[in-house]
Amino acid sequence: MMAEDAHCSCGDLAAHDGRAISDCKDQDERIYMDYNATTPLEAEVIKAITEALREAWGNPSSSYLPGRKAKQIIDQSRESIASMVGGRAEDIIFMSGGTEANNLVFHTAIRHFWKSCGAAKISELGGEHHNGKAILPHIITSNVEHDSVKLTAESLLNEGKADVTFVGASTVTGRVEVEDVLAAIRPNTCLISVMLANNETGVLMPVKELCVRVRALNAQRPSPRILLHTDGAQAIGKVQVNAQELGVDYLTIVGHKFYAPRIGALYVNGPGTLTPLLPMFFGGGQERNFRPGTENTPMIAGLGKAAELVSLHLHEYETHMDSIRQYLEQQLQAVFGKEKIHFNSHFPGSETLPNTCNVSILGAGLQGWKVLSGCRKLLASVGAACHSDRVDRPSHILLSCGIPPEVAANALRLSVGRTTTKRDVDLAVEDLRETVVTCDSPEAESLSPQ
Amino acid sequence: MMAEDAHCSCGDLAAHDGRAISDCKDQDERIYMDYNATTPLEAEVIKAITEALREAWGNPSSSYLPGRKAKQIIDQSRESIASMVGGRAEDIIFMSGGTEANNLVFHTAIRHFWKSCGAAKISELGGEHHNGKAILPHIITSNVEHDSVKLTAESLLNEGKADVTFVGASTVTGRVEVEDVLAAIRPNTCLISVMLANNETGVLMPVKELCVRVRALNAQRPSPRILLHTDGAQAIGKVQVNAQELGVDYLTIVGHKFYAPRIGALYVNGPGTLTPLLPMFFGGGQERNFRPGTENTPMIAGLGKAAELVSLHLHEYETHMDSIRQYLEQQLQAVFGKEKIHFNSHFPGSETLPNTCNVSILGAGLQGWKVLSGCRKLLASVGAACHSDRVDRPSHILLSCGIPPEVAANALRLSVGRTTTKRDVDLAVEDLRETVVTCDSPEAESLSPQ
Repeated sequence: MMAEDAHCSCGDLAAHDGRAISDCKDQDERIYMDYNATTPLEAEVIKAITEALREAWGNPSSSYLPGRKAKQIIDQSRESIASMVGGRAEDIIFMSGGTEANNLVFHTAIRHFWKSCGAAKISELGGEHHNGKAILPHIITSNVEHDSVKLTAESLLNEGKADVTFVGASTVTGRVEVEDVLAAIRPNTCLISVMLANNETGVLMPVKELCVRVRALNAQRPSPRILLHTDGAQAIGKVQVNAQELGVDYLTIVGHKFYAPRIGALYVNGPGTLTPLLPMFFGGGQERNFRPGTENTPMIAGLGKAAELVSLHLHEYETHMDSIRQYLEQQLQAVFGKEKIHFNSHFPGSETLPNTCNVSILGAGLQGWKVLSGCRKLLASVGAACHSDRVDRPSHILLSCGIPPEVAANALRLSVGRTTTKRDVDLAVEDLRETVVTCDSPEAESLSPQ
Repeated sequence: MMAEDAHCSCGDLAAHDGRAISDCKDQDERIYMDYNATTPLEAEVIKAITEALREAWGNPSSSYLPGRKAKQIIDQSRESIASMVGGRAEDIIFMSGGTEANNLVFHTAIRHFWKSCGAAKISELGGEHHNGKAILPHIITSNVEHDSVKLTAESLLNEGKADVTFVGASTVTGRVEVEDVLAAIRPNTCLISVMLANNETGVLMPVKELCVRVRALNAQRPSPRILLHTDGAQAIGKVQVNAQELGVDYLTIVGHKFYAPRIGALYVNGPGTLTPLLPMFFGGGQERNFRPGTENTPMIAGLGKAAELVSLHLHEYETHMDSIRQYLEQQLQAVFGKEKIHFNSHFPGSETLPNTCNVSILGAGLQGWKVLSGCRKLLASVGAACHSDRVDRPSHILLSCGIPPEVAANALRLSVGRTTTKRDVDLAVEDLRETVVTCDSPEAESLSPQ
């Protein structure tokens, strides 16, 4: 729950973190169900950040005590993050966030292709030109990725720097299927990037199986080696994510999806030794030159603390979110009736994130943006937050997964969190019920998208 | 002053911010004189960050209240930063720090060169090849820049992506002289990047005069237009910096040099309209697509608050630091004798930062790293923090400015801050005096660099 700052009897929103807000029983309380957009910070994470802001402001590169102290905090955080994702400390490179991490992987793949494929190799691949077209590095990704992968790939394609195949998610399973990815592999394929869990449907992708198959292929075929990347933004903190078990070369880690601050990290399996990593920035040598820039110690401290919490409590978080999401789905069915709703996150045979319920309340005039803008308590979204200016169009992710346009247009992405309660669910569903009644009325038709 | 956490009677270092530490009178207190490496955060800045961590964790792209609240904080901060550097809010692009900002400017200049110079233009410049060499974008910078400019330029040069001229600082004035820069301009010059103040000597560069001259030249010559960049990392918060008055196209803003957190911003004079800005990252559309990635609201809030403080109190900060630095220089002369020290930051006719005293205590066995490692109270450095692993070599910056190697080897960069007191200076100078006596003794010779 979240209290609107202007009215809540508990005082200002300022006084509440994610946990405290749940205690607010005011009539004007808000129910936050947009944990896939961003999460509040855990109290322990805020404490770690605040302490570092005060204590550990020294430059981590300075050799005297305050510098060394900052360095120790960073090292400790690196250990915690590595432990969370099943890597070694040296596999973790801190960066500003998931967007940077995803961009860096694509940058690396292209540069590594040209570094590893000399003239002789290009000739083996069919010459610099093949069927009248220049040989370019080839990248495979899916058509349901986050914009920081999708638009990066499109930009490389549009600039003539790479060939890109966007493998379509299956309209049956909502997954990016292994066989479809394998079928797209070419001699010049240098990177496969498939997200671990989709941000809108919550569908888990078969990344582990994909890695097994591609690694087998890599062992047989000549270079370029196909590098394997997964964006773990939505999966980490919700389900077990172990980079070594997955078999990926790169895993994107995004703090603000698991109750950590707005920085991120890239897991690289042996950066610069087992796996190439070519920097986008040049500077003062921090992060072993893979990502220079004076380290953001407080945010790194917070990321480390949040990772510790995940390592300690993941099972509890997962079980709670799964149980609440199931209750939410039951209540939606009970209130609206099975025939009046469609779960866009239910695909036969596919596993999903424990916290994500993507649902359409069927009927004319019940577009997701319209319903949400009429809600008095529920805070949720119709899809990725970065598309919030395009709410009047059905999500391209849902369309790609085979959801019909008139159903996709009504989609609500309800994502619950660690502290969401059954009471929150009851209030949110009741809010939706009341809103739908209003939306169904003739005067509601005059509303237009924000 | 800074208290060593293990011994200070005032309690843990944790309890102290920059101001509180000054009240610590313990014997084991530390005197921090490395404000050019990094600064503590002002109490008001920590407050702004902490409040945003708790209150404004919503995704700024979300259309509901918590998202809009975060957006408002970001907008307010953008206004404050623009106001500090004499720009408009729309000229400020938030990014992870100075390293990113500097890299982005170079990236933009190269890409813009190729975008703006079509085949016809390349032909005017002398053809794709000139004297047997391919026509490349040409960049002018200096030989005393921070590594995030120096190594970025070197990387472009080494990869054959740009021609680069590193104009030498004058060994008389310590400045990068306007005439030397102008003499380096070629028909294919597309960027000039000269820092506003040097991080080791504190010397202020003639950026304003340079911009006047280059703008006049731009008005006369055909494209490519020469873009003008200055890294303001060391100048902002210490002297008045007004981007419009300077006449630069780009100004790098680095939070942790002016009591703000470890993020930064790039001032661009009309990004995408008056001045090109071509992104390095692709993603969710934040920062008008110039720098996507979910915004780091708390750190942005802190940066804005620190900018407000600079706008309000710059004169007071500057006057205080200047007076303390002068007192430091007087005391050094009084204690060691004029003939026994050399100020590496004193150049005839050159202005310097108010807070930076670069001094060598002359004599064999008095290398900077050795003296500092012997000090019991003083925390300072021999140069840029990111070179702290190379302390046994004389600073290339000082050598470039004409300081003889045996003098440069003994250099101490003492940089004072807003709260440094005369008592701090007395203690630091006494500490240096005692240490120098020890270093001069025969047994000290057995020490080796860390």
